[in-house]
Amino acid sequence: VEIVRTIRVGIAGFGTVGQATARILASHQAEIAARCGAVLCVTAICRRSPIAAPAFGVTVHSDWRALVTNPEVDIVLETIGGVTEARAVVETALESGKPVVTANKNLLAAQGEALMKIADRRNVPLGFEAAVAGGVPVIRAIAEGTAADRLRSVHGILNGTANYILTRMEAGGVEFAEALSEAQRLGYAEADPSFDVEGIDARDKLAILARLAFGGKVDAGAIATMGIRELTAVDMVYAAKLDATIRLVGAAEKHANGVALTVRPWLVPRRDLLAKVEGVNNAVILAGERAGVQMFYGPGAGGDPTAIAVLSDLMEIAGDMVTGRLAAKPASGFRETNDLPLCHQPPPVRWYLRLVIDDAPGVLARVAGILGRHEINIDFVLQEPNLNKRRLPFVITVEPVSEPLLLRALVELDRDPALQAPVLPLRMAAASG
Amino acid sequence: VEIVRTIRVGIAGFGTVGQATARILASHQAEIAARCGAVLCVTAICRRSPIAAPAFGVTVHSDWRALVTNPEVDIVLETIGGVTEARAVVETALESGKPVVTANKNLLAAQGEALMKIADRRNVPLGFEAAVAGGVPVIRAIAEGTAADRLRSVHGILNGTANYILTRMEAGGVEFAEALSEAQRLGYAEADPSFDVEGIDARDKLAILARLAFGGKVDAGAIATMGIRELTAVDMVYAAKLDATIRLVGAAEKHANGVALTVRPWLVPRRDLLAKVEGVNNAVILAGERAGVQMFYGPGAGGDPTAIAVLSDLMEIAGDMVTGRLAAKPASGFRETNDLPLCHQPPPVRWYLRLVIDDAPGVLARVAGILGRHEINIDFVLQEPNLNKRRLPFVITVEPVSEPLLLRALVELDRDPALQAPVLPLRMAAASG
Repeated sequence: VEIVRTIRVGIAGFGTVGQATARILASHQAEIAARCGAVLCVTAICRRSPIAAPAFGVTVHSDWRALVTNPEVDIVLETIGGVTEARAVVETALESGKPVVTANKNLLAAQGEALMKIADRRNVPLGFEAAVAGGVPVIRAIAEGTAADRLRSVHGILNGTANYILTRMEAGGVEFAEALSEAQRLGYAEADPSFDVEGIDARDKLAILARLAFGGKVDAGAIATMGIRELTAVDMVYAAKLDATIRLVGAAEKHANGVALTVRPWLVPRRDLLAKVEGVNNAVILAGERAGVQMFYGPGAGGDPTAIAVLSDLMEIAGDMVTGRLAAKPASGFRETNDLPLCHQPPPVRWYLRLVIDDAPGVLARVAGILGRHEINIDFVLQEPNLNKRRLPFVITVEPVSEPLLLRALVELDRDPALQAPVLPLRMAAASG
Repeated sequence: VEIVRTIRVGIAGFGTVGQATARILASHQAEIAARCGAVLCVTAICRRSPIAAPAFGVTVHSDWRALVTNPEVDIVLETIGGVTEARAVVETALESGKPVVTANKNLLAAQGEALMKIADRRNVPLGFEAAVAGGVPVIRAIAEGTAADRLRSVHGILNGTANYILTRMEAGGVEFAEALSEAQRLGYAEADPSFDVEGIDARDKLAILARLAFGGKVDAGAIATMGIRELTAVDMVYAAKLDATIRLVGAAEKHANGVALTVRPWLVPRRDLLAKVEGVNNAVILAGERAGVQMFYGPGAGGDPTAIAVLSDLMEIAGDMVTGRLAAKPASGFRETNDLPLCHQPPPVRWYLRLVIDDAPGVLARVAGILGRHEINIDFVLQEPNLNKRRLPFVITVEPVSEPLLLRALVELDRDPALQAPVLPLRMAAASG
C-alpha cells in the first residue's frame, strides 16, 4: 500500500471517546497507515471546558465553528453529545463537504434521516459504527454483511449500564438502588442514570438498527419503552426458580403488517445466548430469512472500544479519500422517506407478571378473574415461602397474549386495592440459542 | 441511489452455494439493486456434470475458461472447490481484470498470498467473506471493524460438522461413529468426512483468520491440528462431571515471541460463550488490546447463509464498479511477504488427559511417575465407577504446562504397556465469557 496523503481529523468535543481516539491514532499511527493507505492525524480539537494542552501538537478551538471550518481539518469527528449543538456541527461539516464520523446515538435517533439526506446530497460519508454496541461492528454487519437478505428481526442487549446493574442484582442478590450506586462508583453509570436505566439509550440505538434493517423513518420517541427501575431483588429470585435471568432487550420484529418496536425487560432462559451476556457487554442478534440467526457480542461502551469503532469509520473514509473514491455510504435504510410501517398488535408471547399484594382471602381469585375477563390464561403461579403477607410479591406466568392486550388488562389489575405496586410484566423469551 | 448499470455475474461451479446465490439474486433483485446501486444478474454458469437448463436464461459453459473470458461476465464467482482448478479460475479472472468472489477456504489457505498479490497488481478486488463462518461477516469484522486495534487472539468454532457431532455426542450420549452417521444422513457431513472431523477445514479457516489478524504468510499445513475422531462418549460423561463440554477450537494467539496456531478439541466450561454454540453453528472470538473481547456467531455453512456472505462481496464490488471506485480491497494481512513469526512454546495451560488402561496395581503410580519426570503436576484424578477394568477410561487433569512439553510426556505415556489407547489431551479453556 502506497501512503500518498495525510488525512487530518478535527475532534469536536474532547471527552472520553475523543481522547481515546486521539490516543490510539498517535500510538498506532504506522499500523493504521499501513492498513488504510493514509496517515491519519488529529490537527484540531474543540471543547467548551478549558483543557490542558494535549501532548501532541494540535490547535485547540474554543468554538466548534472554528474547528469545522478550519482548512487544516479534512474529517470531523463529532463527540460533543446531545442533539442540538451536535446537529449543528454535523450539518455544518457535511454542508461544507467534509466527511463526518459520530458516536452520537441520540443525535442519530432524533435527526438521522435529515443528516443522511444532507450527506447524500453533498455526496460525503457520515459514519456511525460507534453509535451502537461500542466497538462491535454491528452497523457494518447489517448494512453490508446481510445486505442481500431480508431480515425478520433485530434484537438484543443495547445498554451496558443496565446490563451491568441486572448482572449485579442477580449475582449479588442486591436491590436496584445498590447495584446502581455500585455502577456509578465504577464509572459505568452517570450521576443522572435516567437515559440508561429507563431504556432511552437502548431505544435510540434500536431506532438506528430498525432503520438500517428494515428501511423507513422511525420516530424513536414513539417506541414503547420500559426500563429496569421497577425490578427488585425478588424478581431475580423468581427468575432463578424459572431457570432464567432478566435482560433489558430492544427488539425490532417484522410481522405481516409491520415492524413491532419495543424496549422492555425480558425473562431469558439460562441456556439462551442473551443470558450469557454479562456486565457492560452488549449483544445484537440478527435473524434473516437466508442468513439464519447471527449474534454480535462485545463491550457496549467505554472509551477504547468505542474509539476502535470510530477509527474503523475514519480509516475507511481516509482510505477512500486518498484513492479518490469518496462517496456517501450506502446506508440505505436512512434514505427512505416513508415511515417504517409499525405493527401495533404483535403476535402473542408468554409473560411473567410480578404482583405485590396485601394478601387476603379472595385476592388471587380477583386477579384471576380480571385476567380471565381479558381472555388471558394463567399458566402457573409461583410464590416463595416466608415473605411478608402485607406486601407479598408473587409471580403469575400467562399463556401467549399480544402485548397491547396484556397492557390493557394490567391497567385494570393496577386499580385493584390489594395491589401494593404496579404489576411488573416481563416478556418471556423463547430460547433463541 | 441511482441505478446506472447492470453488473453481470458468472458462476464457476454450480453447486449448493452457486445455486443459492443465483436463487437469491433472482428473488431479491430489486432490493439488492436499491441497496448497492447496481442490478446484479447471473449471465453465465459452468459446471462439469450436465445440468438441467436453469429456469433463468443464462449461458451454460462446459469449460471454466469460456466462462471467465465471456465478455458478458463482469465478476466471476468461484465455487468450484478444491485447489488446482479453482486457482486457475481465480488467477485467470484476476489477470484479465475481472473481480473475483470465492467461498473456497482450501484455495485461500493454500494460495491466498499468491492470489492476493495478483489482485493487488491488477488492482481488482478478491472477496472472500464466505470462506470463514458462513454468512457471519467475520472477515469484515477483522479487516475493517477492528482494523485500528492490535489483536491478542482470534479463536473459535470454525467447523459446523464437527460441532454438530460434538453436540449430538453430548446430548444423545452416543459414540462418535453414530453421531457422524447421523450428520451424514442429515447432509451435514460428506461421505468422506475427513476434512471436517480431522480438523483440516478448521485449520484452513484458521490460516485465513491468522493472516488477516496478524499479517504474515501462514503455512496452513504446518499448523498443529487434531480432530475429534478419538473422542468417545465417556469423554462427554467426564466433561459433564467437570461442568464443561467439548468443542473443536481453532486458535491463533499472540505471545511475546510469535503467534501460536493450533486446532484442537478443548474442554470448555458450560458458562463459557463457546459452550452455548450448538449444532452446525460457528463462533469466532476476537480479543483486542482496545476493542476488548468480541464474538461473532451464526450458521457456519449451508447454501443460503454462505450465499448471503458471497452476495455481501458481490454487492460491495458491484457498487464500487458503478461508481467507478473499483480497487483491490485492503486485506492487508495477505499482502505481507514475510512469514508470520510463530510461537513454538506457548504459555502453560491446564489439560484434561483421558487414559484407557488395563487396570492393575501400580499403573497409576507409573503414570504419575512419567508425568512427574516431565515436571507436570497432577491436579486431580476422575474415575467413573463400574467401568470395565480391562479397558478402564479415566481422566487426569494437570496443572498448567506448555503444549509441546505436554506432548513430549504423552509420547512416553503412550509407550506404557498398560495403555489401551493413546492418551487423549483436551486443552482446558479459561472462562472467556
